[in-house]
Amino acid sequence: MTLTFTPLPQMPLIYPGDNLPDLLLAALQTARVTLDDGDILVVAQKIVSKAEGRMVNLTTVTPSKEALELAKRSEKDPRLVELILSESKEVLRVRPGTIIVEHRLGFVCASAGIDHSNVRGTSGNPEDWVLLLPEDPDHSALEIRRRIKVATGNRIGVLIIDSHGRAWRLGTIGTAIGISGLPGVVDERGWQDLFGYRLKITTVAAADELAAAASLVMGEAAEGIPAVHVRGFPYPLRESSLRELIRSKKNDMFR
Amino acid sequence: MTLTFTPLPQMPLIYPGDNLPDLLLAALQTARVTLDDGDILVVAQKIVSKAEGRMVNLTTVTPSKEALELAKRSEKDPRLVELILSESKEVLRVRPGTIIVEHRLGFVCASAGIDHSNVRGTSGNPEDWVLLLPEDPDHSALEIRRRIKVATGNRIGVLIIDSHGRAWRLGTIGTAIGISGLPGVVDERGWQDLFGYRLKITTVAAADELAAAASLVMGEAAEGIPAVHVRGFPYPLRESSLRELIRSKKNDMFR
Repeated sequence: MTLTFTPLPQMPLIYPGDNLPDLLLAALQTARVTLDDGDILVVAQKIVSKAEGRMVNLTTVTPSKEALELAKRSEKDPRLVELILSESKEVLRVRPGTIIVEHRLGFVCASAGIDHSNVRGTSGNPEDWVLLLPEDPDHSALEIRRRIKVATGNRIGVLIIDSHGRAWRLGTIGTAIGISGLPGVVDERGWQDLFGYRLKITTVAAADELAAAASLVMGEAAEGIPAVHVRGFPYPLRESSLRELIRSKKNDMFR
Repeated sequence: MTLTFTPLPQMPLIYPGDNLPDLLLAALQTARVTLDDGDILVVAQKIVSKAEGRMVNLTTVTPSKEALELAKRSEKDPRLVELILSESKEVLRVRPGTIIVEHRLGFVCASAGIDHSNVRGTSGNPEDWVLLLPEDPDHSALEIRRRIKVATGNRIGVLIIDSHGRAWRLGTIGTAIGISGLPGVVDERGWQDLFGYRLKITTVAAADELAAAASLVMGEAAEGIPAVHVRGFPYPLRESSLRELIRSKKNDMFR
């Protein structure tokens, strides 16, 4: 079956309190996409965070002593560093220009996913505003899924994604940060291969593969394509959560 | 533009010396896909390696002292470990069941990408055969691209992919190991965002995002879908190489 990714480009700028499911449904209509059971909507983190009012004005932030020290080492704005610390469990690496953390949501990423671009708050200098990740992206995804189920009757999956760097490779890649109604990982251990042998370990990060693909369609530079419709996802939909994708600290060989 | 991934399922088992471009063209025809300029073929590493005769029979391998020692620590077959070492620049981590290396091709992966499943050599016990990565996957991709250009006149991109683990997340993800005719990374530094600000750094690993998506279509368990046709790749095709995607050891904060 062909796997198709259709961009939903027709969305207004998102403001706190906007009804994202309604906006997504309108965008689907504009793109002339009719939802089917088993379809997936991939949504960029930015519009979820904006609808949830996760903008912070840096002028309201007072950096702690720890933030001031880390700001010096990373050559970053101490107020931004304060927010990074408040969104993180642990700082893993610091270099000029870079702070890698374990986010409070469990994944490892740069700057706790806090973004400066395409953010404009309600007042003051636009450059003072930054955007935090959603409070609970799994729950955000679930809410979108529920409301679309109520509106259309369709059972779909919803994936919220962000762009993450990788330890050993250059460039960012679309990565799942919130999941509802589709598998995070698909466990193919014990399936038989072509010659009837048992495969020992093949656990596929299906949600991350989907996130990467959708990110390709979204591009990076603007908010223009904040959501992508997916048809043909090859695995059965089911309940899941981001936790499926997170390697525990204990099993992380590269901290 | 919609991005579509069409599986090319109709391929025979691959043997050393097989003409992969011809087999891919036949598979395209069976799938009723007509190539266009700008299309991309994503090919699983396994069939490239098999066509290139990269199978090794473990009974022909004599483990070195280093391999014997590493086999003990990793609880792996010393002959397999000998091959892993011969395909690697450096061993990064060792745990029971796991050896993470820098492959001679520059990327970090488990077991130097050497695979046990779906391999059957020309003689002896099938379980004795393993499959190494292609000698030079960029060159393998270029050869496929060239021969398809000669046969059809079409300018396409060719990507060879494998499944890689990640440092901090569970599950494997399709990852580029050979590239010809499409960008590895797309540099969006300096583009303007919606409000006219300059984005500081956005370098997108476009080839890896594509690899992940194609891997989703291929699945993992069998050799059944070893190639995927892609239409709608959103970036201009150009010459490139795998090197674009590899973070240098010097800039790797997580070794």
